[in-house]
Amino acid sequence: MPAWVEINILREPKVEKPALIQGLPGLGFVGKLAVNYIIDEFKLKPFAEIYSSYLILSDGSTGVQIREDGTYHLPKIELYACTESKKHAILITGDVQPTIHGQYELVSRIIDLAQRYGCDMIIALGGFQTPIERELGKVYGVFNDLSFENKFKDLGVQITRSGAITGACGVILGLGSQRNLPSIGLLGATRGDYPDMEAARSVLKVLSQIIGLKLDFSRLEKEIEEFKIRLETVRRLQAETYPRAPYFRREREGEKSPFYI
Amino acid sequence: MPAWVEINILREPKVEKPALIQGLPGLGFVGKLAVNYIIDEFKLKPFAEIYSSYLILSDGSTGVQIREDGTYHLPKIELYACTESKKHAILITGDVQPTIHGQYELVSRIIDLAQRYGCDMIIALGGFQTPIERELGKVYGVFNDLSFENKFKDLGVQITRSGAITGACGVILGLGSQRNLPSIGLLGATRGDYPDMEAARSVLKVLSQIIGLKLDFSRLEKEIEEFKIRLETVRRLQAETYPRAPYFRREREGEKSPFYI
Amino acid sequence: MPAWVEINILREPKVEKPALIQGLPGLGFVGKLAVNYIIDEFKLKPFAEIYSSYLILSDGSTGVQIREDGTYHLPKIELYACTESKKHAILITGDVQPTIHGQYELVSRIIDLAQRYGCDMIIALGGFQTPIERELGKVYGVFNDLSFENKFKDLGVQITRSGAITGACGVILGLGSQRNLPSIGLLGATRGDYPDMEAARSVLKVLSQIIGLKLDFSRLEKEIEEFKIRLETVRRLQAETYPRAPYFRREREGEKSPFYI
Amino acid sequence: MPAWVEINILREPKVEKPALIQGLPGLGFVGKLAVNYIIDEFKLKPFAEIYSSYLILSDGSTGVQIREDGTYHLPKIELYACTESKKHAILITGDVQPTIHGQYELVSRIIDLAQRYGCDMIIALGGFQTPIERELGKVYGVFNDLSFENKFKDLGVQITRSGAITGACGVILGLGSQRNLPSIGLLGATRGDYPDMEAARSVLKVLSQIIGLKLDFSRLEKEIEEFKIRLETVRRLQAETYPRAPYFRREREGEKSPFYI
Repeated sequence: MPAWVEINILREPKVEKPALIQGLPGLGFVGKLAVNYIIDEFKLKPFAEIYSSYLILSDGSTGVQIREDGTYHLPKIELYACTESKKHAILITGDVQPTIHGQYELVSRIIDLAQRYGCDMIIALGGFQTPIERELGKVYGVFNDLSFENKFKDLGVQITRSGAITGACGVILGLGSQRNLPSIGLLGATRGDYPDMEAARSVLKVLSQIIGLKLDFSRLEKEIEEFKIRLETVRRLQAETYPRAPYFRREREGEKSPFYI
Repeated sequence: MPAWVEINILREPKVEKPALIQGLPGLGFVGKLAVNYIIDEFKLKPFAEIYSSYLILSDGSTGVQIREDGTYHLPKIELYACTESKKHAILITGDVQPTIHGQYELVSRIIDLAQRYGCDMIIALGGFQTPIERELGKVYGVFNDLSFENKFKDLGVQITRSGAITGACGVILGLGSQRNLPSIGLLGATRGDYPDMEAARSVLKVLSQIIGLKLDFSRLEKEIEEFKIRLETVRRLQAETYPRAPYFRREREGEKSPFYI
Repeated sequence: MPAWVEINILREPKVEKPALIQGLPGLGFVGKLAVNYIIDEFKLKPFAEIYSSYLILSDGSTGVQIREDGTYHLPKIELYACTESKKHAILITGDVQPTIHGQYELVSRIIDLAQRYGCDMIIALGGFQTPIERELGKVYGVFNDLSFENKFKDLGVQITRSGAITGACGVILGLGSQRNLPSIGLLGATRGDYPDMEAARSVLKVLSQIIGLKLDFSRLEKEIEEFKIRLETVRRLQAETYPRAPYFRREREGEKSPFYI
Repeated sequence: MPAWVEINILREPKVEKPALIQGLPGLGFVGKLAVNYIIDEFKLKPFAEIYSSYLILSDGSTGVQIREDGTYHLPKIELYACTESKKHAILITGDVQPTIHGQYELVSRIIDLAQRYGCDMIIALGGFQTPIERELGKVYGVFNDLSFENKFKDLGVQITRSGAITGACGVILGLGSQRNLPSIGLLGATRGDYPDMEAARSVLKVLSQIIGLKLDFSRLEKEIEEFKIRLETVRRLQAETYPRAPYFRREREGEKSPFYI
């Protein structure tokens, strides 16, 4: 048992030809925020949970996270079935990304599982880091099939033409291609400084059109407004205190961000 | 043989439905001190010892530790049976924690072994680092079953409501939960500066009530008193020499503490 | 699946007793430039491609590289058959070197594959870092069979008499020797500051004589001339701006070069 | 093939109940110098050689070392049979120590091999770092059987009573004990600054008495004298140039010493 992976099927999902949609923690938490919003909106329950020695705490140590009620849990990845969309979906979310050594194995086993339920497409959600103001709000896309190019243009998705997609987000795209599954990535432009709900909203707007999902954005809009107000307050206070210091310097230094995208 | 694990059963323990109680080296050595005190008080002998390439010296290198008589030994974990308590127990102690890569495997194999002897509960002992004076002496608890909440309150255990338990202490709780064993953690608040016998005493007082163990604390009290006197002497000398330097700066810098809890 | 290796045979190569010639990214990209020049000159198509969890992005993370058309691919190693030479050849090139943990396994499997096609010789191409002006342009050689000594002298190859050849370039030589295959290394002297086409040209001139390949160097000569002009422009501008700064300081600092040779 | 180990038996050694004597590179190269001196004195030829992905270059990279004649070799460990001693011996020497991950496996396989030839004892040679002048020249010993205590006293070996023996030297002692083989360590006190032939001589004097080996020390004495003269010259020159700088500061900084003992 050099590596331990346990996949608990909690109940059989009723999905037909689902897309496998991944939103794990990463840059600006864009992917995770997007997937979790769908889960919360439709009050979905996980149908499978994955525990593994490849899933470790975000500070690099093994162990358990403690919940507010005094219970605890090993870091886990969860799968949810979404049948509210025209194109059914299996959603992947989790506490952490697999360690580098485990990404190929864990992601591969998740695709195995999804294919058992008829999965015929992969959509990886993530963030795209940019310091450029006018790029914020945009969604960047990659695909493994040129037929997506026009679809992306219709949806206002920018075609990405260089760089890399790292971490589990890139691995699921790579392994999806290996299996000849149409596999696309949707990356919300983000400064990456904080959990970026606006970037998640942009990604969700594109995603919901691709899979035919009617999504009520009002709660998200409200949260974004509230967050903006808090952010503005912090910025003003910082500006008054350290007039020439860059905004969010502290937050950025303090933030642990071992994962990209 | 990429990883080598050897479990030597020295003799069959006579235990009935034992709790598996882990006290490996960690923060303030709280868990190890507590378990070792029980072992010493009842003059227990190990019934099993575990050697492994996952057990390496605390400086991260492989090798053997040299004893005072010129003999040496590979780092090891030992298991002891305690039948002096109403609830029988299998105690885990050791020279070191397993390496991060081996924690899942070794802890898992220890639970396997304990379950072979009827183990139906896991108790992980450790330290809880705090710089706050008034928290010292307290015991913080986590559980995987809300029925423990009242029991903890009765025993004066603080319910932990955030954070993480890292290292083997967290892993045994996580793996215990995976196997649906009631699994609780008892963490003695400690500054973590030195082997903290007072924190170990607090943990032992709770533990002895949980498993119904009559424990004579007089030797521990005496050792704590003696240690306090030595500590006070050192502090006074340091204060005279470096009036403004923080106490124990040197000890803290010199101490290798790769493990938490 | 702790390590994932997938070798896709795209079509059977028609080679007779081929030499296996490796040119992976490394110091000055000498080996990769040399092999890729042959591939481009003869418009060769890969007959096999290798994907693996041992092939990760050059920044050490997992993921995919994005192409200019918006598609992406996992890092890969490709094999090409060259029958334009008297001594047939199987050429190895790729996006990256295998990770240290995977070099033995991947290189070993590549030799397995080549031997299936009758491979009876190994030639590893790489760079030899030197700051000494008069060494530039020279090719340094190593061999596992002293009969090569005179051949090298005839070809103007300097015999290397100390040091080490690291990375996949060294590993293929070592594993070739283990299998009693004549295995030689040809290392173009390079400052290692930038993709060194002149060093690649020197290596190609020796290689083409060894395997009897008629190679048209005119495109390479042109590219070298163009590069020299750009380089000279940059240097002059730098010299004017920072008169005392060493040339290429920035380039060297910015360049990621985790691999040697 | 995650880890590759190849043991080539070059010819069957003719030994009877040999001691397995290990002298791999380590602190002051004491163990390796000692074993190599025996090999050179009796012009022994290796009977087995071990190649492995666990044996990497001392800078941590994979690859081959280049010899003066232009050939090269993968890092290797070699075994020699010594029948010149009353107690026959199998000598272990090598270019490098196994990596930490491979020490248990490789050392274990070497003991397997030695036991196949009747090995009934293990002697690990190494260095013991000390800055104390009067300890130099002494040999420190550890054992796994208290019956060695008097023997060590008779031979003038200091009993070590604390600390650790790290690296392959410690691992072979630990694994030897696991197999219930008498296993002793002989550690020559050394500053560890340079290949310490004097420490190796001290170790050899004890070793030769233990295994009953008549060893001519005249070549070693001569080399030590020559080295002392060179050392003295360097020290004088340094003292004249940097009157207050510690001797050998540069050498110590430049030296790569990833291994201890």
